[in-house]
Formats: sequence, structure tokens, C-alpha cells
Amino acid sequence: MTVIDEVLAKKIIQPRPLDSHKGTFGRILLIGGTYPYGGAIIMTALACVNSGAGLVNRDNIGALHSHLPEAMAFDLWDQALLVSQIKVSDTILIGPGLAEDDTAQKIFKLILASLVQDQILIVDGSALNLLARQEAVSWQTNRLILTPHQKEWERLSGLSIPEQTQEATQAALRHFPQGTILVAKSPQTKVYQGQRVGQILVGGPYQATGGMGDTLAGMIAGLSMQFKERPLLDRVSLAVYLHSAIAQGLSQSHYVVLPTMISQEIPRLMKALSESSSDG
Amino acid sequence: MTVIDEVLAKKIIQPRPLDSHKGTFGRILLIGGTYPYGGAIIMTALACVNSGAGLVNRDNIGALHSHLPEAMAFDLWDQALLVSQIKVSDTILIGPGLAEDDTAQKIFKLILASLVQDQILIVDGSALNLLARQEAVSWQTNRLILTPHQKEWERLSGLSIPEQTQEATQAALRHFPQGTILVAKSPQTKVYQGQRVGQILVGGPYQATGGMGDTLAGMIAGLSMQFKERPLLDRVSLAVYLHSAIAQGLSQSHYVVLPTMISQEIPRLMKALSESSSDG
Amino acid sequence: MTVIDEVLAKKIIQPRPLDSHKGTFGRILLIGGTYPYGGAIIMTALACVNSGAGLVNRDNIGALHSHLPEAMAFDLWDQALLVSQIKVSDTILIGPGLAEDDTAQKIFKLILASLVQDQILIVDGSALNLLARQEAVSWQTNRLILTPHQKEWERLSGLSIPEQTQEATQAALRHFPQGTILVAKSPQTKVYQGQRVGQILVGGPYQATGGMGDTLAGMIAGLSMQFKERPLLDRVSLAVYLHSAIAQGLSQSHYVVLPTMISQEIPRLMKALSESSSDG
Amino acid sequence: MTVIDEVLAKKIIQPRPLDSHKGTFGRILLIGGTYPYGGAIIMTALACVNSGAGLVNRDNIGALHSHLPEAMAFDLWDQALLVSQIKVSDTILIGPGLAEDDTAQKIFKLILASLVQDQILIVDGSALNLLARQEAVSWQTNRLILTPHQKEWERLSGLSIPEQTQEATQAALRHFPQGTILVAKSPQTKVYQGQRVGQILVGGPYQATGGMGDTLAGMIAGLSMQFKERPLLDRVSLAVYLHSAIAQGLSQSHYVVLPTMISQEIPRLMKALSESSSDG
Repeated sequence: MTVIDEVLAKKIIQPRPLDSHKGTFGRILLIGGTYPYGGAIIMTALACVNSGAGLVNRDNIGALHSHLPEAMAFDLWDQALLVSQIKVSDTILIGPGLAEDDTAQKIFKLILASLVQDQILIVDGSALNLLARQEAVSWQTNRLILTPHQKEWERLSGLSIPEQTQEATQAALRHFPQGTILVAKSPQTKVYQGQRVGQILVGGPYQATGGMGDTLAGMIAGLSMQFKERPLLDRVSLAVYLHSAIAQGLSQSHYVVLPTMISQEIPRLMKALSESSSDG
Repeated sequence: MTVIDEVLAKKIIQPRPLDSHKGTFGRILLIGGTYPYGGAIIMTALACVNSGAGLVNRDNIGALHSHLPEAMAFDLWDQALLVSQIKVSDTILIGPGLAEDDTAQKIFKLILASLVQDQILIVDGSALNLLARQEAVSWQTNRLILTPHQKEWERLSGLSIPEQTQEATQAALRHFPQGTILVAKSPQTKVYQGQRVGQILVGGPYQATGGMGDTLAGMIAGLSMQFKERPLLDRVSLAVYLHSAIAQGLSQSHYVVLPTMISQEIPRLMKALSESSSDG
Repeated sequence: MTVIDEVLAKKIIQPRPLDSHKGTFGRILLIGGTYPYGGAIIMTALACVNSGAGLVNRDNIGALHSHLPEAMAFDLWDQALLVSQIKVSDTILIGPGLAEDDTAQKIFKLILASLVQDQILIVDGSALNLLARQEAVSWQTNRLILTPHQKEWERLSGLSIPEQTQEATQAALRHFPQGTILVAKSPQTKVYQGQRVGQILVGGPYQATGGMGDTLAGMIAGLSMQFKERPLLDRVSLAVYLHSAIAQGLSQSHYVVLPTMISQEIPRLMKALSESSSDG
Repeated sequence: MTVIDEVLAKKIIQPRPLDSHKGTFGRILLIGGTYPYGGAIIMTALACVNSGAGLVNRDNIGALHSHLPEAMAFDLWDQALLVSQIKVSDTILIGPGLAEDDTAQKIFKLILASLVQDQILIVDGSALNLLARQEAVSWQTNRLILTPHQKEWERLSGLSIPEQTQEATQAALRHFPQGTILVAKSPQTKVYQGQRVGQILVGGPYQATGGMGDTLAGMIAGLSMQFKERPLLDRVSLAVYLHSAIAQGLSQSHYVVLPTMISQEIPRLMKALSESSSDG
């Protein structure tokens, strides 16, 4: 068991190369925010852009742009545009605020069919439930990240919450492509990949607000294309650490911590960690 | 007569249990914000989420999400969705920015018919007028909270404003289910339940802005599902106290205090009060 | 010539009566923001609410509520609602961001025909041009406030800009109902009523941004129903003073001062002035 | 080679003339933000208004006004209004978030045909690609500003990125009207006009976020009509300097710098530079 902590975070976060441009940190496609869950994908996009993603595309337009004109947005039902965006994206995140209906299922299958090797697929929220209902999937990528909370992991793995021990979870994870990363969200969130297990020690009850998961998913997406000299597992662990460390920091002065507060703090904490990173 | 003050607030506010998740503090359904009063429910939702509500659903979508992507939003006229949301909600608040028309009356009746024991119903704003116009209601819950200002209480109780003495108000309250809580808003707001009466000593003219009532209603909703080890009356009193204490604090530097300013301060005051709460 | 300065402002601004409620400071109706000028009325509403108006109604809904859920908003073409709102309003402001077309002309005539004695009418922006094009108006109120800049005053008075001397302006003002207040906007803005003339000494080029006039109009509306123990001329002068004093204050740190920055500062400056007001 | 630095910036930025009004700094027309790129023009408008533009018009209404009610907005497909706005504008910027489709091409041709001598035309983003695809253009103005990044300059000049030396770029620039200014964006952005070349020394990888170019274009537009006693080249260089200097400043505390953060800081840096400008 690895501890996911500040020491690890400082090792991962490095100053950006001087010749970075907006394409350096990849294209990230966020899919979700369908009626009546339009706010979720806004939180995801805020987290993703503040985590340093170069380009972000997603659905749900007006209110998103009032928060974040930095994100490009389009109508998910614009299928030709969706297919072209899937093709040019390095990371695809599906799930935050995605209604569990037939159209969502269709979009999810379209993505599974369109993926190519090396594209990263993050499956979050209701997309995990869509996945649980699918027959055997022929995975086109082995860079798969799953981010279930305990109930979603129950549906996906068949393990009831009390059965979700470390060993049982690792066994269940073998049904997914080798290299799949599992972010098992709980009061003591763990990150699994094969036999590796990491765990955060920070975090707490001040996160009991809807939208925290959407924010974490956006951070994982945003960090998935940075610090590429480190394994993907490290970058996912970094997202998990930053999310909890910021929440804990804000909870020193706020009884309730809202997800949008977390996104706002990401650039500052990453800067602070990057400054001591050269020693790491 | 109890004084609703900082001492009481500190006794009620406790650190959150370490294993809290977004479902711990209940599901809260806010109904209102119909044309042309769309802003009201935004203020209510801001207050509710900042008060620590786990999940919030409501009507009036675009502008809400530009303030608060944390809230789920849907069209009130989507009746199937409304019924399913009523069923899974722990607290239902109806009234802020609800037009007093036939559709509103229909929705209100739908809620009264769908409620089950233990669900909390908060009736605010124009929903109090809808209630005043109804024949005898067969209440499905005894966890009813009414939040009238003096004119609304006149319509509901039949007592003209000069007649609204403590004794007359207590007598009128007996026409509602036993245990009903009345937040009688006035420059000296009182909270009634049966023979119990609490009164705040803070508050003042800096609250003379439209939207203050919408904000208070949202805070009552948000706090209704927290601190459940304390009686519901205490939690309602806490909302009344926090609302006035924050307004008074802001008035030290602002001639006019806007409702949205109050919501923004809730997490900070609750944190400050929770830190000394262990002594309480 | 009176100097409109801090001394005057302190005399006018008084602590609010302890029993103020949202109706105390009147109902204010703002009319404008029609396509393609939708932003103007948002600035007006921000200024009006931050100046302490109790209730505000206006057109142009979504984007307004993303700034200011405190304001009620409706569609101007909803004529029945418009007429009912005119009736219950104490102050009506027409003009900011109002397109100069037939519909605007029709609405303006509707207002002129509906006004009753004691209602305050503020004519700003393009409504001044609509007024310039009208034949003789039969005024239903003598509480008229005109807020032209130099070019608009030229159209309204027939005086070319070089001809707009104090004497000529006073003479032209006699064509309006007795008691009409003229806010003659220029780098040295003056306020006229009959033989009285006030002038501000603060203000400067940092105000050269579209929207400053919309903001001033909103402040005049917001203050028109406060400090009613003072003549209306004083309250208008106060708005002119606060607008310029805040802009000057912000210009100490900002090369460009945006109108929305001014509105945000109103509650703080009014508070500061009210604290020394008892000596005034 | 000139260094574009603080010394130059201080020479250019002067206190505003005391009799400035909103028309003093010109009318600026921003064209872009068509589906699915609506956010881009919001960032451009934020930069433009914060840089001190007097009046700004553009497309994409709701979300824009939630950021910036100061901007007037209209539907680009409203051709009569577009033509009338082109006529009264001093500077026209086309490109940020403009889809590269037939309608965009048509609008671009309309602008090229409508321009008159002395109007400034800034061609940015996808409008540079539209330009690259056009046959010989008969330019109606010699006040042309091009703002390509390296890939866009490749399409426009025919020079591959490695071929984009200073000499080759100067030669390619001769195909445009004499006096054309080229802002060649790269990690070491250079500004060309005829034989003159300026280069910034500040700037870095913290700018690797979508929207930085939209923001720079807005700043160039906003500054194009100020400091008219200095050559246009100086004003463009000032925009380039301010953009990078602010990004560098923010990067001291933020790992990621978002474009909207830059716009917010413009008034403050301009003020600071203007205060020492009298010594310049």
C-alpha cells in the first residue's frame, strides 16, 4: 500500500516546459451534463481547465460559458461533430451528469467503438451504471480509468459494499483490461492498478456535497495529459491527492466546501507544490 | 420565551461525522421560481447549498447553473420527474418565486397528496397564499414548517397584523398539525412550536431587500436535514439565527445587504461556531 | 451654484429606520434592455439594487439573473403584466438599452398615459430621444427626472452643445413640468431644478466606458425612494455624487473603471458616509 | 530588433485626457463566437473592455452578458445590423471562435468589401485561415493587423514552421498592404511592420491554455483606439507586452493561468504603468 501524499505530489508536479502551447497538454473531451443534470459537467469542466488541460470540449452551452468561456461546448446530439471530436481527443471522460437513458447508452457505445489505442477513457458517474448493464465489452484501449463510489462499484463488480475488501476489489478489477486504474471513492479513497494500491490520508466529511465526484473526474481528465514522464497511475493519484488536500485546506475556514471552491484553488496549490518539486 | 442566540447556535452546530457522504444530509426538493420570479429560487438554492444540503433539485435552469452548478434543476411541468423527485426527497420547500396561478395550485396539491410521514414540508412565500385559499387539508406529515411574514400570516390565520400577539398566534397555530413550526417573520422574528416560542435579538433594517425571505427559506431547508440529534425546532431556530447574524455582520461594512451576500458567508460563520461548539 | 460633495452626501444618508422592510423603499420599475442592448438594463439593475431599492422589476431575464437574482424580471411585451407593474411602482425608469423603435415608442406612450401624480418618472438614454420626437406631452406627474448627456440634451432642448450654458439650459427646462430635475451629464455634470443648480467636483476620464450612464440611472432610481425626508433634488444629487466618488476612488488603482465595479462599491461607500452622517 | 518591454509600455500609456467620453476611444466591432466556439468571443470582449475600449459590439448574447453587460451584443446573421455596425466602427476584429464555414466566409468578404480607409482590421484565429483560402484581396485599408500562431502563419505565408525566419517572414509580409502589422505568436512572440521587428522577453509556458489568443486579440482591439499620438505599431506592441507581463505576474502564484484572469488584471497593470509614465 502506497500513501498518496504531498511527497508524491511534489515528485510528480514539475515546472512546465518553456515551449508548451495549448496543444501540449492534449485535447480532452468531456461528455455529460444532459437534462436534468446540466450543472455536473460545468463542475467537471471547471476542474479540468483549472488542472491545466489545454483544450476542453463538452456539452451544455450557455451556463457553462457563464462560468468558463475557456471551454468549447457543443450539443451532444450533433453526432457528426461528436465523432470528429472523439477522433482528435487524447482523453475522453464520460459520465458526470449523464442521464441514464437510451441516448446516453448509444453515445457510450459509440465511444467504445471509436476509441483507438493510447486514447485514455475515464468512466464516471452514470456511465459506470451504463457499463454495468453492458454485455462483454471489446476494449479498444488499455488506458481505462474507472471512478466509482461504493454503490457504483457494487453494480460494476457485483461486490456488496461490505465485501469490497482490497483483495476482492483487486480480483474484480481483473475483469477489465490489464492496466485499468480504479479510483475507489469512499471516506478513505484508494487507487488500484493491478497489484498496486495507493491510499490518501487526507479528506473528510466536508466533502459531503453533490458535485465532488464531478470535480474529481474533471481533475483526473485535466491531469491525465500532463507530467507524461510519470506513469498514468501517478497522475491519477495526483488528482485524488489535490482534490482532498484542497478540500481539507478550505475546511479550515468553511463548514461546507463546495466543489466550485475546490476548482478555484487548484492553480495555487499546484504552484506551491511545483516550487518545492525540484527537491523531490 | 427562549432567546435564539449564539449560545444556542453553538450547541446545535457539531463537527460533521467523518463518514458523511452526499446522501447523509438528505435530499431536498425546492419548488418555485416560475415566471416572472425566476431569481427567487436561485437565492433559495444558494442559501440551501451553502447551508450544507447534500443534494438539491429545483426548477429554472440556465441562470441557476451560472450561479450554482452544484444544484440539479428540472422543469416543474415535467410532472413524472416531479413526482419521482417528491418521493425520494427528505425535505420539500415550496413557494419562493412561485407564481400564484392554477398550475402552482395544482403542483401544491400534488405535493400535499404525495407526502408521506417523516418528510418535512416547508411552505413559504406565495405557497402560503395558496394554502390560505384551500379548504381543509388532510396533512400527511406533522413535520410542517410555515414561514410567513406578517401579511401572509394575516391571510393564513385570519389575524390582522395588530392582532398578531403571541397568544393569538399560538391559538391560530393549533389549526395546523401538532408539531407544526411557525417562523413568524417581522423586525423581531419569532419561532413557534406549540407552547414554545423563541425570538432572535439580532437583525435589523439592512435586510429590507427583496429575496431575504427566499434566502431564509433555503437555509431552513438546508439545515432541516443536519444536526438530526437535535429537535427540528432547534434546526429551524439555527437557520433564523444564522440568517440574521450574518446580515448584522455584513451591515457593519455595507449600507445595503443583498441576500446573495448572506449565502456566501454561511460556510464561514458555521465553521466559526462549530469550533467553539464542543464547549457548548 | 451648490457644490454636490461629501458634506451634502453625509447630510442626506441616514441610518435606516429599524422597522424597514422590503416595501419601505418603494417599488421600482426599470424598462429597457431590448435587443441588441440587453446588457444595459443589467447594469442599471445592479446599480439600483446596490443603491438600496426594495423591489425591482425589469426586462431581459436569463443573463440578468446570473448577475442579480434579487431582481424580478419579465418580458416587456407581456403588456398586461407591464400595466399592472406600472400601477404598483413608485418610480419608473425608462431608457437604458431601449431600442428606438415603434414598440419602444408605444411602451413609452403607455407609461406617459398610465402615470399618476406622485409616481417618479426617470427618462434616460434612448427614451430621451423618443421624448424629443413627441408632440406636446400632457404630463401626469411633476416628479420628472431627465438624465441626458450633451447630445441628448441637444435633441431635447434644441440647444447645440456650445449653446448649453447654464442660463439657456434653465430656460429650456421651463418647457417641462415645474419641479422637473435635469441631470445634465458632461465632464462637469450639473443637476438643475428651477433656479437651483448643483455641480460635482469629482469625476474624470476613467468613466469613458459604455454603461456608465446606465449605472447612474439605476442609482438615481434606487435612491429616489430613500431618504424621503429630504427633497427629491437632494436624492438625485446624492446618486450623482456617489457615482463619481466611487469612480474616482477606483481610478486610484484601475486605469479603466467598469460600470459593474461601481455598483459593487455602493453599499460600502454609503455605509462609510452614513457613519459620519449623524454629525452632518 | 526592438525589445518590447516595460520601458516602452510606460512611454505609451498616458493618463487619459480629462474630457474623455465613451466615444473618445472609438467603436470596436468584434466578430466571432459562432457555434460551437461561443466562449472565445467572450474572452475577447473581456480583454477588449478591460483594455479600455469605449464601445464594443459582438455576437453571442446570453453568456456574454453574464460576464460583461458592458458589451452590446447582436446576432451576426442579422445582416442589416452588421452592415450598419461595420460602418460606424473604428476597429473591426474578426476571428476568435469563428467557425470556418460558408457563412463565416461570406461575413468576412462582406467586411473586406465594406471597409473604408482608416478603419483598422484585425484578422485572428480562423479568419486567418479564411484569408489563406482567398484569391487576391483588394484591400480597402492599409491598417491591417494579422495575429497568427505558427501554424496559421504557415497557411497564410506558405512558410513551414522551420522556414519562419525573421527574413522569410518579412519577405512574406510584403504580400500584404504596406504598413500591415504582423503579430507572430510563438513562445518568443515577435511584432513585425515592414523592416521593424519587436520582440517580447517575458511570457512562458503558463499560457498553454485555449483562449490566450482570443484574449490577446481583444487587447489589441481595445488598445488600437487609445494612445493615438503613438504609431499603431506601438499600441499593438503594448497589447503584446501587457498580455505577457500579466501572465508572468499571475504565474508567480498560479500553476495554470486562465485567459479570464488576465483580463481582470489589465486595468491594474495599466494604472501602475501610467503612474510612472510621465517620467518616460
